[in-house]
Amino acid sequence: MAGRRVVVVGGGFGGLTAAKGLGRADVEVTLVDRQNFHLFQPLAYQVATGGLSPPEIAAPLRRILRRQQNTRVVLAEVSSFDLERHHVFLDRMPNGKEGASLEYDELVVAGGSAYSYFGHDEWAEHAPELKSLSGALELRTRILRAFEAAEVETDKAARRAWLTFVVVGAGPTGVEMAGQIGELARDALHRDFRNVDTRSARVLLVEAGPRVLGAFPEPLSHRAARALERLGVTVLVETTVVGVAAEEVSLRRPDGSTGGVPARTAIWAAGVNASPLAAALAAAVGRDVDRVGRLTVEPDLTLAGHPEVHAIGDMVVVSDGAGGTLRLPGVAPVAMQQGRYVARAIRGRSSGPFRYRDKGDLATIGRSRAVAVVKGVRLSGFPAWVIWLAVHITYLIGFENRLIVLTRWAFSYITRNRGARLIGQEEP
Amino acid sequence: MAGRRVVVVGGGFGGLTAAKGLGRADVEVTLVDRQNFHLFQPLAYQVATGGLSPPEIAAPLRRILRRQQNTRVVLAEVSSFDLERHHVFLDRMPNGKEGASLEYDELVVAGGSAYSYFGHDEWAEHAPELKSLSGALELRTRILRAFEAAEVETDKAARRAWLTFVVVGAGPTGVEMAGQIGELARDALHRDFRNVDTRSARVLLVEAGPRVLGAFPEPLSHRAARALERLGVTVLVETTVVGVAAEEVSLRRPDGSTGGVPARTAIWAAGVNASPLAAALAAAVGRDVDRVGRLTVEPDLTLAGHPEVHAIGDMVVVSDGAGGTLRLPGVAPVAMQQGRYVARAIRGRSSGPFRYRDKGDLATIGRSRAVAVVKGVRLSGFPAWVIWLAVHITYLIGFENRLIVLTRWAFSYITRNRGARLIGQEEP
Repeated sequence: MAGRRVVVVGGGFGGLTAAKGLGRADVEVTLVDRQNFHLFQPLAYQVATGGLSPPEIAAPLRRILRRQQNTRVVLAEVSSFDLERHHVFLDRMPNGKEGASLEYDELVVAGGSAYSYFGHDEWAEHAPELKSLSGALELRTRILRAFEAAEVETDKAARRAWLTFVVVGAGPTGVEMAGQIGELARDALHRDFRNVDTRSARVLLVEAGPRVLGAFPEPLSHRAARALERLGVTVLVETTVVGVAAEEVSLRRPDGSTGGVPARTAIWAAGVNASPLAAALAAAVGRDVDRVGRLTVEPDLTLAGHPEVHAIGDMVVVSDGAGGTLRLPGVAPVAMQQGRYVARAIRGRSSGPFRYRDKGDLATIGRSRAVAVVKGVRLSGFPAWVIWLAVHITYLIGFENRLIVLTRWAFSYITRNRGARLIGQEEP
Repeated sequence: MAGRRVVVVGGGFGGLTAAKGLGRADVEVTLVDRQNFHLFQPLAYQVATGGLSPPEIAAPLRRILRRQQNTRVVLAEVSSFDLERHHVFLDRMPNGKEGASLEYDELVVAGGSAYSYFGHDEWAEHAPELKSLSGALELRTRILRAFEAAEVETDKAARRAWLTFVVVGAGPTGVEMAGQIGELARDALHRDFRNVDTRSARVLLVEAGPRVLGAFPEPLSHRAARALERLGVTVLVETTVVGVAAEEVSLRRPDGSTGGVPARTAIWAAGVNASPLAAALAAAVGRDVDRVGRLTVEPDLTLAGHPEVHAIGDMVVVSDGAGGTLRLPGVAPVAMQQGRYVARAIRGRSSGPFRYRDKGDLATIGRSRAVAVVKGVRLSGFPAWVIWLAVHITYLIGFENRLIVLTRWAFSYITRNRGARLIGQEEP
């Protein structure tokens, strides 16, 4: 078993946790990612609203793993797998050369997911997503530029469209994003502008389901919705987006009518699709992926017929071994627990099927407002917000970033400003 | 005099200081800039080497001026002037509309300068500059990616080219940049890589003149050169760049011979050209600009024949009123003193021609190393570095940014890491 080669694909929560779990094992680990950093995606929306800057929520993978002498990092994109010959093929190598590959004895694939536009990829141009750092930076520029445009716009209707923000999807990210835009307009910006009252900005939070934060207990959903409304957010449930254009978002209302809302800024935080790597693995064993591109793995997170291939995170669905599947949310704790499980398995310390320990659920709405379910206990308001804050600071990587993020949050709490309000030019 | 309209073009050191100097005057101020932030350009090189992140050295103009009720900010580019009718024409308005203009009673133009490639604009693609935030971010990506490329490169010569960095121009920015790359390679990165010894990186600092930091007294130049060499930087004086391509920089050596250095990363910190606004003003009064595009202004910083038009900063040369010109360096203190002078003049408190009070000169080479001339006293090493640090922290805008930059510097001093080592993707 000594010196087995483990290739880990993806430096997100799942892949990074797996790689770290192998630090003291007698294996050679290669972590491949197309980015040189691990992104703390749950705070990406704060980059989009100028509260935090990218390096504060993104830690270089090399830095995180530098003391782990059995581990190397390769910056590249994985293009395909040869499961028979145990090869991973790489693309977009930093030196521009082609045809590189890695051989493995054990493979961990943690490709994650990306937002899906329900088959309308043409909407992406008008409604950037919030899962990547580049999406968050693009949104920062659009949101801040919209207020600048409103400031110089003399036509009343046009100004209203610049001051209308449509957030699609009311999961935690959509709720947090809508709340942040509300605070930005009401608190951070309103004394900075002369011609326009930024507090008149409209934020529409559009959700196809019957309530915001559908994964939370109903009373907490209602509290979140009330908190959002106090921030000036209009919550539109049972409402579907049927079109996104540069100057308008078309909605289908609960009564079945459709109509357009003039809006120059739309933010996408709705459905996700699994990484194409899930389909690549599925195809290699003659299987299909599900409706959102996910691969079904065995109860021990391996690929059927390939005990040396592990797949984790929100690109997979886990079989319960009895014809059904586990119902796991697409969140960081699931990916991290799966990463830890797989590292143990590779170290030969497996014990039964993977089980998710649900430690709870958190979402913040804004300044001092959040909802939380912690070990079954429901919390809202300030106590939930303190827990939200503590959990996010704890899981951020690096003492320097924790200190800087705390500093930014403290200033933003006191001054109600957002410290990273830059409009990009070439950036992004 | 009441309610006169003052238009200030440019939110750099000169324009921002002028606008702030008019805060309590009985005038209406409009500050126009194509960016929504004031960039603390002297620290841009730290963004390029992953030491600081953009929001830490860039403060939103609106935020800086929010309590100044007589002042508004417009995000736009100035395309031209009509000096007879007192109009400034705007381009690239945030709402996409065209044909906007501003009327003024007093005009302050502070357009700054940009790096010039000595007529070889085709070099820009291969050697980004360090004056803008987008240039600094582009360089951050290229420098960090070069180390990633070296890590996966198996060909020895190709690897050497990836590990060769050519910095063109040995003024303060070039010296600081070369020193930072040296420290990055020797201290910050070397334990993070497995295949490549980052300490073998070569940094060439190319200077056409006879010594580095030509504006400093000769003994300090020599100390700076020695400090650079201790960081692994090779100083090439009396050497001219005659070509920059993707994989090679061509140099003419002091003996007249020319030859190419295989290098995948080049950084431009050499000559500057004045903003095209200088030529636009000169043309309006039938004058020429000088070799580097600068406009000559009267001893009171006004345009000849137009006492209501003030031009400041490194886009102008100041006439001494006796057929010659003042010799002023293109640095922030000159622009700031000129901005203050112009604000006083507009408030009717002018007193004689502009005079520059030279408070000294500073350049840092790296960790604990700097050179300084303060009121004629020459300093080097740790004392100069402490002064450098204090001055830069003092002139940064915003208490939050000061605290965060100090935090980053403290961590980087202790851990020798750079906290913002992100390789951009879409982010330029």
